[in-house]
Formats: sequence, structure tokens, C-alpha cells
Amino acid sequence: MTTTTVAKVLRSDYQKSVASYWNNEKDPVNLLLGDVDGLYHHHYGIGDYDRSVLEGPEDTRDGRIITEMHRLETAQAKILLDHFGDISPADRLLDAGCGRGGTSFMAHQRFGCQTDGVSISEQQVEFANDQARQRGVADKASFHFRNMLDTGFETGSCRGIWNNESTMYVDLFQLFAEFYRLLEYGGRYVCITGCYNDVTGGRSKAVSRIDEHYICNIHPRSDYFKALAANNLVPINVIDLTSQTIPYWELRAKSSVATGIEDPFLTAYREGSFHYLLIAADRV
Amino acid sequence: MTTTTVAKVLRSDYQKSVASYWNNEKDPVNLLLGDVDGLYHHHYGIGDYDRSVLEGPEDTRDGRIITEMHRLETAQAKILLDHFGDISPADRLLDAGCGRGGTSFMAHQRFGCQTDGVSISEQQVEFANDQARQRGVADKASFHFRNMLDTGFETGSCRGIWNNESTMYVDLFQLFAEFYRLLEYGGRYVCITGCYNDVTGGRSKAVSRIDEHYICNIHPRSDYFKALAANNLVPINVIDLTSQTIPYWELRAKSSVATGIEDPFLTAYREGSFHYLLIAADRV
Amino acid sequence: MTTTTVAKVLRSDYQKSVASYWNNEKDPVNLLLGDVDGLYHHHYGIGDYDRSVLEGPEDTRDGRIITEMHRLETAQAKILLDHFGDISPADRLLDAGCGRGGTSFMAHQRFGCQTDGVSISEQQVEFANDQARQRGVADKASFHFRNMLDTGFETGSCRGIWNNESTMYVDLFQLFAEFYRLLEYGGRYVCITGCYNDVTGGRSKAVSRIDEHYICNIHPRSDYFKALAANNLVPINVIDLTSQTIPYWELRAKSSVATGIEDPFLTAYREGSFHYLLIAADRV
Amino acid sequence: MTTTTVAKVLRSDYQKSVASYWNNEKDPVNLLLGDVDGLYHHHYGIGDYDRSVLEGPEDTRDGRIITEMHRLETAQAKILLDHFGDISPADRLLDAGCGRGGTSFMAHQRFGCQTDGVSISEQQVEFANDQARQRGVADKASFHFRNMLDTGFETGSCRGIWNNESTMYVDLFQLFAEFYRLLEYGGRYVCITGCYNDVTGGRSKAVSRIDEHYICNIHPRSDYFKALAANNLVPINVIDLTSQTIPYWELRAKSSVATGIEDPFLTAYREGSFHYLLIAADRV
Amino acid sequence: MTTTTVAKVLRSDYQKSVASYWNNEKDPVNLLLGDVDGLYHHHYGIGDYDRSVLEGPEDTRDGRIITEMHRLETAQAKILLDHFGDISPADRLLDAGCGRGGTSFMAHQRFGCQTDGVSISEQQVEFANDQARQRGVADKASFHFRNMLDTGFETGSCRGIWNNESTMYVDLFQLFAEFYRLLEYGGRYVCITGCYNDVTGGRSKAVSRIDEHYICNIHPRSDYFKALAANNLVPINVIDLTSQTIPYWELRAKSSVATGIEDPFLTAYREGSFHYLLIAADRV
Amino acid sequence: MTTTTVAKVLRSDYQKSVASYWNNEKDPVNLLLGDVDGLYHHHYGIGDYDRSVLEGPEDTRDGRIITEMHRLETAQAKILLDHFGDISPADRLLDAGCGRGGTSFMAHQRFGCQTDGVSISEQQVEFANDQARQRGVADKASFHFRNMLDTGFETGSCRGIWNNESTMYVDLFQLFAEFYRLLEYGGRYVCITGCYNDVTGGRSKAVSRIDEHYICNIHPRSDYFKALAANNLVPINVIDLTSQTIPYWELRAKSSVATGIEDPFLTAYREGSFHYLLIAADRV
Repeated sequence: MTTTTVAKVLRSDYQKSVASYWNNEKDPVNLLLGDVDGLYHHHYGIGDYDRSVLEGPEDTRDGRIITEMHRLETAQAKILLDHFGDISPADRLLDAGCGRGGTSFMAHQRFGCQTDGVSISEQQVEFANDQARQRGVADKASFHFRNMLDTGFETGSCRGIWNNESTMYVDLFQLFAEFYRLLEYGGRYVCITGCYNDVTGGRSKAVSRIDEHYICNIHPRSDYFKALAANNLVPINVIDLTSQTIPYWELRAKSSVATGIEDPFLTAYREGSFHYLLIAADRV
Repeated sequence: MTTTTVAKVLRSDYQKSVASYWNNEKDPVNLLLGDVDGLYHHHYGIGDYDRSVLEGPEDTRDGRIITEMHRLETAQAKILLDHFGDISPADRLLDAGCGRGGTSFMAHQRFGCQTDGVSISEQQVEFANDQARQRGVADKASFHFRNMLDTGFETGSCRGIWNNESTMYVDLFQLFAEFYRLLEYGGRYVCITGCYNDVTGGRSKAVSRIDEHYICNIHPRSDYFKALAANNLVPINVIDLTSQTIPYWELRAKSSVATGIEDPFLTAYREGSFHYLLIAADRV
Repeated sequence: MTTTTVAKVLRSDYQKSVASYWNNEKDPVNLLLGDVDGLYHHHYGIGDYDRSVLEGPEDTRDGRIITEMHRLETAQAKILLDHFGDISPADRLLDAGCGRGGTSFMAHQRFGCQTDGVSISEQQVEFANDQARQRGVADKASFHFRNMLDTGFETGSCRGIWNNESTMYVDLFQLFAEFYRLLEYGGRYVCITGCYNDVTGGRSKAVSRIDEHYICNIHPRSDYFKALAANNLVPINVIDLTSQTIPYWELRAKSSVATGIEDPFLTAYREGSFHYLLIAADRV
Repeated sequence: MTTTTVAKVLRSDYQKSVASYWNNEKDPVNLLLGDVDGLYHHHYGIGDYDRSVLEGPEDTRDGRIITEMHRLETAQAKILLDHFGDISPADRLLDAGCGRGGTSFMAHQRFGCQTDGVSISEQQVEFANDQARQRGVADKASFHFRNMLDTGFETGSCRGIWNNESTMYVDLFQLFAEFYRLLEYGGRYVCITGCYNDVTGGRSKAVSRIDEHYICNIHPRSDYFKALAANNLVPINVIDLTSQTIPYWELRAKSSVATGIEDPFLTAYREGSFHYLLIAADRV
Repeated sequence: MTTTTVAKVLRSDYQKSVASYWNNEKDPVNLLLGDVDGLYHHHYGIGDYDRSVLEGPEDTRDGRIITEMHRLETAQAKILLDHFGDISPADRLLDAGCGRGGTSFMAHQRFGCQTDGVSISEQQVEFANDQARQRGVADKASFHFRNMLDTGFETGSCRGIWNNESTMYVDLFQLFAEFYRLLEYGGRYVCITGCYNDVTGGRSKAVSRIDEHYICNIHPRSDYFKALAANNLVPINVIDLTSQTIPYWELRAKSSVATGIEDPFLTAYREGSFHYLLIAADRV
Repeated sequence: MTTTTVAKVLRSDYQKSVASYWNNEKDPVNLLLGDVDGLYHHHYGIGDYDRSVLEGPEDTRDGRIITEMHRLETAQAKILLDHFGDISPADRLLDAGCGRGGTSFMAHQRFGCQTDGVSISEQQVEFANDQARQRGVADKASFHFRNMLDTGFETGSCRGIWNNESTMYVDLFQLFAEFYRLLEYGGRYVCITGCYNDVTGGRSKAVSRIDEHYICNIHPRSDYFKALAANNLVPINVIDLTSQTIPYWELRAKSSVATGIEDPFLTAYREGSFHYLLIAADRV
């Protein structure tokens, strides 16, 4: 990339530091799990885990755990995609904050449509495009080094847009203004995200710990609904997935790929200061 | 009631006409169903109906249908109450637009707490208070001739508030401002409502037909989320119940207590211009 | 029209149903009256009617009534145009929701300027363009199958814009945002509309009946002033025409072309739940 | 008045300077005209003047002009009061910025109801209360040394409120917030005011000259409608009285009581940078 | 300039009268001072003056005063420019309301970068461009007959923008919206302005006198911060310069170039109804 | 305190955790410094430190550093108080988030007026009241276990309010709404605070580290100005103190009382992601 392009995509020091983090990130918890079937996720899982993976031979235990965690992450992406309803092969979807492309490939496989992913990490974009070529879907699933706040894509060009745990890096009002622009009338927006709970109050110690770890800015739950309302995105389904994601974290805490951030997540979820939330909304 | 009191509760001609409608309403679809077990509902049902009620002896068929419809209506109220989570006997709940008290009695029975209902129909309030006396719960479940936009109850006095199909008579911004005032910090609001779909556009012919029938003002879905956001009420769960309420209307259309409004409801739900929506939100 | 164009103009199911209504509309109350002098109106009349039309020979009575009703409708359009003040032949006017072109032809005749009408009914547009050809003014009065919320006309290209009873099909905030864009600095906006009265409260039964009849969404009076204020359109004259339009409806109720909607109109106007309002405002 | 009371009513240096101006004001244009029939006005007139007053004997010419100007001022107050519609003797009206009480006495005489006037000039209040005693109506028409932004009157206690050329001393958003509080649901607000024209742009030299003369802050026309919309006051009639007030100023310029401010008024009205506007609105 | 261009730049009568004022302005207080060193300022000065200029020979006294006043005006512009921090030669600055170009030339000299000035006075623009040619910097300092509310310059093209006493001619919300558009992310805005004090209340007599003199519309201090907040311009330094500008006015009152407006300025500053304020803000 | 009172003051889990932190806090950096002269501060210092304190005998070095740090902290509080201008002994000041009372005692000593401090830490309140008794000023300086978002003090009762590094625990819009209520017209608000820089983007890793350490929620700079503008608090002076506070942190990093949070502060200040800001504003 030329310096000019980078400057255009990464307009603040904050964005540069986030990009740098993900350009350098090679956490086994993402790479080893992705190796299971070639879907590299950058989000967490939902659903109860199979307790039997903890039992049995010690030497294959870790492999069983990793496979199981990957299954839960794929289940999460599946639920996210379920909320798009009917998408036709002629439609176009946008994966905002696409990571290494996992959810995009699942969407393409399911709907047969064009999917575009954007990320401010050049490394992730390159990785995902490589995957697309290996899967022979590069004509339909492509990934771009672009800022989701200002994608440059055509107005009204998307039937659906999702954020799979990528909203905590941006201002929601700016984000949803761009999505309002990109979505066609009646288009669908879906996100799964961690948000802190206005009811327990400000960001708890555990939530700030997560912010520091990922250099992210976790939003209060209320911000999502204010920013949706301000941008003509109208909720149709909202699901509190907190209780469904806790088992994933409990399993992860017992795995070899634990990064140390498991404890703040579990603390925050259990004390109620943090939610794992799915929102599906229509653009009107 | 003195003229002064009535003038204070019913401040506009519109409210007077709504009050008059409900004061005079004696629809079998409400009274006969309520007679089944003494829970008089003024809302619709959800869940699939038992197809067997349509079969069997002709002369008891209608009775079977009525019992089944009542079961579906009670199931609806049950789902609404499920979203309050833990309510202790020391808490206080408000049933805004309480009708003849059905949901209030279910709430009291479930949580053991004080429940207050308000209605602008003096007849409904009287009916509900009679029921409370007959049930021996008049000390804990009471009903008041008051306007839900201006209840006069103490600030911060409610742990929870619900609207069971009563929001279409009022301005949502005024309503949620009052609820924000009434709810304690962290209190829960739940509503089930019919709302029209911003995606299909303005109020369809079928929706206006319903408005005319009930002298109500059905809101667009978007209004709910704008008014919640403007009043510090933050959604935690939103469920599109449309597909779950259609069976109820199909059964009702076949019953002896059909009022003629069944067709507009079924048309509106099926064409997508109308939703049956549950919203649970926290007051922060 | 190609399917693509139609999809672009009619973006929601609601708009499609409105378009369909007007495409198929052949009400004598519009066609017979228009036949009088070739000005086909789609709005109501103002001023007292000549009581003598009801007397005299039975067989020509209906013709007299129709001519008189047409005179009152033309008088209404005249008052609307009066509020544009000085318009020069070099100016351009927009008739938003032009119907079969009646007001547009009057404006062209009066000011000698370019007038463009837009409608989402292809039938109306075709009809009006036919009229323009027959009148030999097709070079100056033209009609377009376009959505008034998104006309595609150039920014700042209009000296004046009016809605003659066509605002009840659209969101006023969206509408006035488009008009703000289209009007030059200092340009004039005029509308005549039926609106419901915030003082009597929500939409009355009679108003919902009108909504259902025309598949329209009558706005509260307050919405007009909120939407004008939000879009830099500043009122200079506002006239409550209610008492002046009632005679028209009384006459129409006695005519052979009554459609059945006369009673709801008269009820609504008389009970005070509905206004017939003229608003003139400047774009700043 | 005690120092404390004065400090409470006059909370800013600006208000003190306005109060001081009016406490010391003894302009013949107000006092001589009031002497005609005991109605002391502090506003301008409307309607054409009788050209004959300029003719005839020189020595009584001035008297004729003064009587005629007073007639036009009383005609102005009459039009203002016309917009209240039906007011019953049991109602209560508020004259905000009452001056020496002229309009208040006309209102009381017309409707038979209680009228309260407020002014930040103690001298004016005293003068008006004296007048009330002389007229024997002190029990029904009373005047108070209070700030119209914070009257201290009871919430919902007024059926109607007017400003007769007194809005240019206060912030309209604060003013209408107080009036919203004071008016009962459905109450009527009427004002006649000079406002500058947003279409010609900012305050012209002539308008600033008027501001300096009266130490007032003339608002743009748009501010009135923004502030009404923000405070649930919905216009029902708006009349541009500019052309009707110019004759008054032309006559006044020829009178012995001209103060020198006639030229800026005439310049501003004629160049279009200034309007004389009546607004009637309903509180909802 | 062609009539069309003028009409585009001067869109209201108000703007035309302001342009006319400055096109005809030849006040010695601006021209004689500018002659000192060729920097023609249209703003006031700050800092204490050298008392010795009032002493010494009578015949050169006026020359000494003029040189001293010019020094104070240049000192003011220097402080304004200090708040831009590091500007590189590759950056571009905009002087909004550039007058005869004084501050622009100082900026170019200091930073070596491109500076563009805009004014609605063709005479000022011509004068400033002449100066640029004489100074041999016409390639880097250019002046344009454009409206600062709608400059036509490219989005994001400016590193910095200032108003040196030119904000009182425009609506601040419109102005800052244009500046938000023009500034790059992180760009700096600086203004020095006279504003009236919300604490003392509305515009005082002295402030209205200044408004009339310059045909300007002095804003309340609060408007600056509301308009900045509404347009993502975030203050980083705000300095009340009032006490530092009073000496300049005292000296000017004693000079031969006094225009008569000195007394209102001194009165307004001393009574506290008027501030001389510097604001530096970042565009985010 | 009774449980009820505590529940009223600490309404969320977040507030409880903050209160618990400060109830248990016994950091030498606060206590040892306070012991120097009995002014216990809970904020940082400004100004350059005397380099000589680092030199000289090792065994008294730490004492010298501590005395010097305390001097810088006292200097900071002095600058804050400078911005109140003239406060008379009859006025009343509020110290919002008073900690152990340091700034309050300085204010009382300087102005001779009543000062009230509020804190959600009962331990701090008790400590500060003890100090007041020891100093013999308990009649004029008192401290209360109250929430600064809802102090319960009388409307308009304060001449001035300050936050000395205590705004990062609360929502600024709620806070300034309460201060608007408490301040008399024309009253002064002053705060010194750390805020993150919107120009560098979201909260940096270093800023989140500080948030985690203190369980606080550092706001972006822009939030201060939005919340002030929304609550009629108008800035008059804003000073970026960042460069003046860095020496304090450099010294503290070398002291025995360093807590480990020095490095994030220095990193954040130096990289520009964090400001140390003073804001003085007037309530209008």
C-alpha cells in the first residue's frame, strides 16, 4: 500500500494502533482454531460445550478442546447469519471488520451472493484474500483495506451488513451513518457485540481491562440503540446471548490457547456489567 | 367520579372517545373468554392452537375454541411476565392500560407483589376492582381510573411497568417520559404491541382499518425505539412474535366471537405491514 | 416504464399500493368535474356554494352541482397560487403530487413560467402530459413519474413548490428536506392540506376512516410546523380554511358523485378533530 | 419593593436596563394617546388612517392625529383578542409584558374574565393597577411586578396568554417553555410582534437601530416557529400584518409625538427586512 | 465580476449591504495604520500601549499614536497565529473574512505555506491581491471573492482556518458546518471575536450601537460553543482578551482616526456586556 | 449510615465499586503528602519542580520529593480557585467529589465563604469533617455523603462549583444538569480534569490502563463541551495544562510513593492521547 492510501484508511493515531495490533496478531486461539476447517474467526462462541472433550486421553485433550471451541464460534456466526432471512444470489453483503474472513465465507456459502469484507489491518485483508483464492471464491468473496466508517462503496449498494464483534473500535453514530448510506431501503443490519451494561453503571474494572487488552472502546448498551435510532435503523430482534457465551469462556479458560483475558470476560459477564448481545435491525 | 376528576383524567376529546368505547365494550371475545377462569384479557394470543378443537361434536365446538383462544391469550401474558425476571414480593409493578385486570392478577399470583393497574375506562377499573375483591387480593392488586401519561404515582416507585397492547392509544414519547419517572433506577419495562412496519412504508389500508375499529393510533416500529432511546429505556430483548400470533387470529376467525376485525389483522400480518412485537428494556 | 425505474420511484409496498390506487382511480367526482373545463383537480373546494344549484329542474340539477363543485375546487387552487406572490416567467415551479395536472395548468397560465409536476401514479402523469399536449403547453408544463421525496431535480432549481393535498402520503421531515434542497434561497413553499388536530388528541375514528379510504396517513397539525422548522422553511401566512371547506362537502354529499367519504369528512371537520389548513413559508 | 424581590424579578443587567428604560419612560406617544379614553397602549397600530385628520384647522390637527393613532392602536389590540375565540368569564388570561394595561382592560371588558398582567417595570405595574382601581375592576384585572420568563403563577392556570409587542426582550425558547407550563391543555397563545426577515438575511441597519433605541433584541421570524415547535405550541393562524401597519407609522411620522424611531421602522418595513406578524397557536 | 457570480456570492440583501459597506469603506483607521508597514488590518489590537506616544511634540503625536495602534493590531494577529502550533510549508490555511489581507500575509511569512483569503467585498479582495503582487507572494497568498459560508473549496483541503473579527456577519452554525467540511481531520480553527455576554443578558444598548455601525450581528458567547459542539470542533484553548484590548480602545479614542464607535466599545467592555475572546479548537 | 441512605447515594454497582475503592484507599501518595501541612489532596500537580530536591542527602531525598509534590498539587488547586474571580464571604461554593477536603479548605481560607463538599466515599467524608473540626472551621466547611449527580441541595444555592479531577466517574450530561440546577444565574463552574483527545481518536491503551486502575471512565475532550453547551454553561477560559503537569509525573515516578500508574500517565500525555485541561464556565 502506498503511504497515501494508508493515511486515508487510518486517519487517527488510535486507528493506527488498532491496525498495528491486528497486523501483528498471531494468537493461536485464532490461528489454531481456524486451521480446523479453514474458517478463521475473530469472535467468540455460543452454546454449551460438550463436557466430554475435557475427559479422555491427556495428549489429545487440547485438540478436542480446540475443535470444540471452533464449533462454538462457527455456531455464533451461524446465528448471526440466520438473522438475514432471505438473501438472494444477486444481493450483496458487507462484513464490516472482517478479520480473516470466517463469517464472510460462511455467508457466501449459504447465500451464494457477493460478500465484501473490510478491515483496517492489511495483514488480515491479505490473509482473507488468500483464503478466498484457495477456496476458489475470489470472484465472489473479496476483502478490502478500508475503514468501515468511510468505505467508499456505492450508496445503497448493500442488501445486508454485519459487524461480528467489531463495533467496539469505532464511534457508533459515525458507523451507522455510513451503514445507513450503504444499505438499500429495507436492507438488514445484524451485529453481535459485547457491550457494557448501563444498569450496573459505568465501565467496570473488568471491562476497562478488556479495553486495554484489545485497545478497544467498549460501548454502553444504550449507545447502540441511540445510534440506531439516529440513523433510521429499526430493531426487529434483540437477543441477550450472555448466558449462552459463558460456557465458551469457561472452556477457553481451560485450554492451552487461553490468552489471559478469559478472567476479565468471565468476571464481567457474571457480575452483570457486560452483555453479549445480538441486534438485528432494518434500514428504513 | 366527579366531573373534575374525569376532566383531569380525560384531557382530550380523543381520550374521551377511547374511554367511551371501552366503557361500553361488552364483546363476547373478551367476556366469554374471561369467564373460562376469571382472567379477563384485553389482548391477543400467541402459540399454535390445538387443531383438535375444530373437530369433534359441533355443539361444543365453540366452547372448545373459546377455551383454546383463552389459553393462547394467557400464554401471551405469561411470556410478557417472563421478561421481568426476578421480582420480589416487596416490589411494585404497574399495569399501564390494565383493561379488566387479567395480566395484573397473573403478575400478583406469580410474584406476590403489589400490582397497580390504570385505565381511562371507569367501567374497566370498576370491573377489575370487583375481581380483586372476589379473588381476595384487593389489598395487593388495585386498579385506578388514571391516565397512564400522568399517573400521579410517586417518582421511582415502580420496579416494573408493562403495556399489554395499550400503547397505541398514546404518544410514546409522553408515555415513556412518565415511565422513566415512575421506574426506579434499573427497573424493567416490557410491552407487547402491534406496530406497523416502517419497511413496508406508511400505515397500510388494513392497519388504518384496525385504527378505525378501535379508535387507536398504531405506531410505526421505529417510534418505539426512538421514544425508548429518548427516555433512557434501553432494550435488552426484542422478539418479533408475528408468526406466533397468526394462528390465534386464524382460530378466532373461525369462532363464534369473531368481531370482523380478524381479516384486517390477518391481512396486515401476512403482507408484512404489521408486526406483533415484544420489547423488554431497562431504565437507566 | 422499465421495472428498474418503477422500483426506483416506488420504493416501498406502501407507495406501490398508493400508486396502484391512483392508477386505477376513475372516480366521477374527479373526472366529471374536470370535464367541465379541462382542469382535472384532485383536491377539494372552498367558499360558499350557490344555493340555487340545488333548486330548479331535476334533470339538470346534477350538472349544476358538478359545475358548482368544480368552481369551488378551482377557487381553492386559486387561493393556493395567490400565496406565491410575484413569480416571473423565468422562474420554475414544482407541483408535488400533481394528480392530473389541474393546479399546474392554472399556475402556468397565471405566471407564464415553467411548471413541473411529479406523481407516483404513471396513469396520472400520462393523463396530465396528454392534457399539456392538447393545451399546447407541453414545452412549459410537464409531468414526471417521480417520487416527491427524491425528485432527482437539480438543487436550488425551484422558485416555488406546492402540495395541493398530497402531503398525507409521505413523511413530512423527508419531504421538507427534499424541498429545502430544491428551493432557491428565499423560495416559497405553499401547501393546502387536511391535518388532524393535536388539541382534540390522536386520530379520531373519522380521520382513520379517511386514512383507510385513500390509503393515506393524515398528519397532526404539529408535525407540519416541526418539519418546517427542522428544514429552514419559515411560515409567513397560515390560514385555517376549515369553515370555508365545509360547504363544499355539504354540496358534494348531495351530489350524484358522492363517494361515501363525505360523512367522515363532515364529521371530522365539525367535531374539530380535523383542519383544512393553508401554510405559506419561505426557504432560508 | 424590597431589594430581594427586585433581584428575583430582574436577574440580569440587561433586564435591569430594560426595566429602568420603562420606569422612566414618559413618551407623549404613549401617554397622550392613552389620555384619549384611558386605554394606555404600548404597541403600534394597524389599518388605514382617515386622511381627513391631516386636513382642517391647524390648531386641532395634532389632536385629530393623536385620536386617530389611538384608534389604530386599539384596532390592533382588538385583532389580537379576536384570535382567542371563545373565552368564558371563568377563564383566566395572562398579558405578558403588560405595559400600562391597555390590552388587559380590553380583554376583561370583552370576556368578563380574570386577566393578569406582568411587567418588569414597577412604574408600569403601579400605573396599571391605579387604572384598574379607577375603572373599578381591580378584583378582576391585576398587574404584577414579575418576570414573564418565570411568573410564579400556577401550572396550567391560564386559558390564554398573549404578548403584545413584548417578545423582543426575552429568549423565545425560555418564554415559550414558561407559557407551555402556564397554559392548560388546549389553551391559546397569541402574539403580535415585529420580527426580522430571515429571507433578507441578518439584522439590517434599521433593525439594529430599533434594537438600540428600545434596548431590545428583535428576533428573526424563524426563531418564533422553532421555539413554538420546541414547546408544543402549534400555530393555527399566522398573519403578515406588515402592509397594515405602515399607514400607522406614516401618520405617526407626521405627528407632534414622533420620537425619531419612525424612520427606521418605515425603512425596515419597506425594504422587507422586518415584518409585523400575528401568530395564534394552541398548547398541546 | 459578472452579475451571476455576484448573485451567487451575495445571496441575501443583508450580505449585499455588508459588501457595499466594505466596498466603500476607506476609514483612515484602517488605511493609515496599514500604510505603516503594508499590513492592512481589519481588526483591533491587544496589549498595553506605550504611554510615551501621547507625550512629546504635538505635530508628530498623531503619527506616534497610529504607529502604536498598528503595533497593537499586529500583536493581536500574532497571538491568533500562535494558536496554530506547527504548520508546515506544505499545509494550507484559510483566512475567512480576510479584509485587506493583513493576517494572511503574516501567516504566509511565518509558516511559508499557501494561504487563501475570502471576502464578500470585491474591493477588499482586489486590494489584497494587489498587495500580494507587490510583495511578490501572489503564488502563495491569494484572495477570493467568495462567501465564507459556501467557499467552494475542496473538502478536507485546509490544515487551519481562522476568523479575525469576521464571525459577526454570519450564522455560526452555517459557518462551522462549512469549516468542518473544509478542515482535514485534526485541523485547527482559531478565531478572535467580540461577543456579547450571556451573563449580563441580551444585547446591551452599546452592543446594538456597534451592530448598527457595522451592519453586523454580534453573537452571544454561548452561540460560539453551541455551534462548535454541533460541528465537531473541540476547544483546546479559550482566552478572555477583554482586559487586554481596552488599552487599544483608550488610545484610539485619543487619536485623530477615531470613528466615533470607540465609546460604545469601551462602554460595552467596561460594563461587562461584551467580551473580546480567542477560541482555538480542533476538528475531529 | 443506614442501608437506605447508602442505597440512595450509591445507586449502581459501578458507584458502589468506586466508593469501595476510595473507602479503602490509603495510598501514601495521598496521605504522606497531606501530612505535610494538613491539606489532603486527591489530584495531581502543575508547574515545574525544583530539580534540587533530587540531589543532596539520600536519606532525606524522599521527604524533599514529597514536600515538592505537595507544593505542585497545592499550586494546581490554587490555579483552579483563581478562576472563580470575586467570591464574597456571603457566597456558597460546592466541591463536587471533594476527596479528603484539600481544595475546600483552601477555598474557605481564601474567600471566607461557606464551602460544601460531597463524596460517595463515607470514609473520605468522615476524614474531611474531622479535618474541619481540627481546623475549627466546621461551621463553614462541611462535607456530605452525597452523590454529585443528585446532591439534594437547594436550587440556585451555589455561587460556584468545581470538580477537581472527579468528573471521570460520572456522566457529564447528568452532572452538568445538576450543576445548572444548583448554580445561581451567572454562577461560575471550574474544573480541572484529564480527558482523552478526540484528535488522536478513541481511548488509547494507556488511557484504558488508567481507567482500569481507578475504575474510572475518562471522557473525550469533546464530551465536556457538548455537555456544557447542553446545560447552559458557557466557557470563558479553557487552558491546556498538559505540558505543565508532566514535570509532576516525572518527579512522582522517581518518588517512593509511586503507585505504578505514573507510566501510563506519562505515555498518554506524551503521545498526545490525553490532556490535562482546565475549564471555567458561566451558568446562564
